[in-house]
Amino acid sequence: MEDRTQYEQASPVVQKRIQDSFDLQGLMSHLGARITHVGPGRVHIVLPARPEVTQQHGYVHAGATSAVADSAGGYAALTLFDEDSEVLTVEYKINLLAPAAGDHLEAVGTVLKPGRTLTVCQLEVYGVRVDGTRKLVANGQQTLIRISRPAAE
Amino acid sequence: MEDRTQYEQASPVVQKRIQDSFDLQGLMSHLGARITHVGPGRVHIVLPARPEVTQQHGYVHAGATSAVADSAGGYAALTLFDEDSEVLTVEYKINLLAPAAGDHLEAVGTVLKPGRTLTVCQLEVYGVRVDGTRKLVANGQQTLIRISRPAAE
Amino acid sequence: MEDRTQYEQASPVVQKRIQDSFDLQGLMSHLGARITHVGPGRVHIVLPARPEVTQQHGYVHAGATSAVADSAGGYAALTLFDEDSEVLTVEYKINLLAPAAGDHLEAVGTVLKPGRTLTVCQLEVYGVRVDGTRKLVANGQQTLIRISRPAAE
Amino acid sequence: MEDRTQYEQASPVVQKRIQDSFDLQGLMSHLGARITHVGPGRVHIVLPARPEVTQQHGYVHAGATSAVADSAGGYAALTLFDEDSEVLTVEYKINLLAPAAGDHLEAVGTVLKPGRTLTVCQLEVYGVRVDGTRKLVANGQQTLIRISRPAAE
Repeated sequence: MEDRTQYEQASPVVQKRIQDSFDLQGLMSHLGARITHVGPGRVHIVLPARPEVTQQHGYVHAGATSAVADSAGGYAALTLFDEDSEVLTVEYKINLLAPAAGDHLEAVGTVLKPGRTLTVCQLEVYGVRVDGTRKLVANGQQTLIRISRPAAE
Repeated sequence: MEDRTQYEQASPVVQKRIQDSFDLQGLMSHLGARITHVGPGRVHIVLPARPEVTQQHGYVHAGATSAVADSAGGYAALTLFDEDSEVLTVEYKINLLAPAAGDHLEAVGTVLKPGRTLTVCQLEVYGVRVDGTRKLVANGQQTLIRISRPAAE
Repeated sequence: MEDRTQYEQASPVVQKRIQDSFDLQGLMSHLGARITHVGPGRVHIVLPARPEVTQQHGYVHAGATSAVADSAGGYAALTLFDEDSEVLTVEYKINLLAPAAGDHLEAVGTVLKPGRTLTVCQLEVYGVRVDGTRKLVANGQQTLIRISRPAAE
Repeated sequence: MEDRTQYEQASPVVQKRIQDSFDLQGLMSHLGARITHVGPGRVHIVLPARPEVTQQHGYVHAGATSAVADSAGGYAALTLFDEDSEVLTVEYKINLLAPAAGDHLEAVGTVLKPGRTLTVCQLEVYGVRVDGTRKLVANGQQTLIRISRPAAE
């Protein structure tokens, strides 16, 4: 496992805000994904390789790979904004570089260019084996828009 | 529901080949997706809106939207090749145009440019209500590569 | 030549506004490009194939192909806004489908989804021969942002 | 000016092959672009900011920015192949992050994932001032295909 202590942590308040939003994403829990790192402008999400997330050859499906990459980028952006902001994905592009093999995938979203309206993130997904071997399996670029959260319902 | 009779059907052999491959995709059945049309160079996949596929606001997650769009495009390409071919997604780009609301999503993959090595597909995803109202919620473009299927194992 | 009478024309005021902005783009005149159609949400730009726009094999360079596609999409969006608005390209993705051969290229930008802040366009580029034969050589998707024009300087 | 001595140089043979191909690109010389670095899997191209490459606000046009980014990526890939290979751009996606201001642009193409058939590159474009200030103005991702060069004509 990569040494996570090298990455700066976000404040507890921000970490909680990200985790709370993540917990509301039915898809993430249905896929079995979990957040493993929340830093300023950087979020990691792990997706265990299970039969429920595969394509026809037994590798992780590009759609599942993309789903965790998209969420990682979105939450990386959200770490930079205040609690009255939300972010929505405008678009993303992802290259599937290698079969998504490994015991789990690790998606890394990193803010490349923050902005008041639009934020651009880099998306990387690694296939990770139990022995710690890591391989880049997907790489992408994502555009997000910040919106004001609707007043409490 | 849109009138499906307007679309040309693929041959029964091709339809079975596509369905058999789809049935091997653990992710598609885990998400609750099913194929609803297989035509030459065109495949439709329906994804019912359930809590298991949502993001934090209750709309279908961009990752689930992308997953069915990616599969629809891949199978649209596969309809054009013989049984010894498989296709892999090289990359895709998708714009999320509107909140993915509706009772189900319908992803439509259409071959824009077939090729011996590379094929390019258009991806569209509609949010569909029980009353039949349809709205384009995502639009994308996908590049696929044809590979020869490994000899029987 | 395709029959242009089939396309709705924008109002003379909008046509003039688009042409005036186009005339300020040093790159477009340097490349030899010109606007050939301005309709509501749709703009065509023609680029004659000359040695000044080629890549190493004598076809039109992907960069020149992209440049006219990007401008066509941007102006297609601009036709939908009032005179106090400008649009900037946020991002685009383009597939080069075939060698950009022909006597000229015709780039067609079409608004797919207009929006108060963001607009998404489809980009198509055709290689056209003197005999009228047309072939799709590039296809793309573009995101634009509307901004308010700064007050007169 | 950034310290170029930090980057590994390609062999003189490779450097000449890249330069010779670049010199055949009518567009690059028409835009005033030149290669400033050829390393293994990495190529830099500089584009001076001149009225001939601008959009309507006087910044470098997204099309010109993209053109040099696309060429930088293509040549970065080409450095990795033998003399009988050529590369063609399959597709690319680029985000315009900031107005392309500066005295010149520097496009940096870097191979992210080489492959026998497909290669993926990262594209970065910086706006550089005479005083050496650099700002990332565009970031993209590109897919290329290797083809065998036709036998001598």
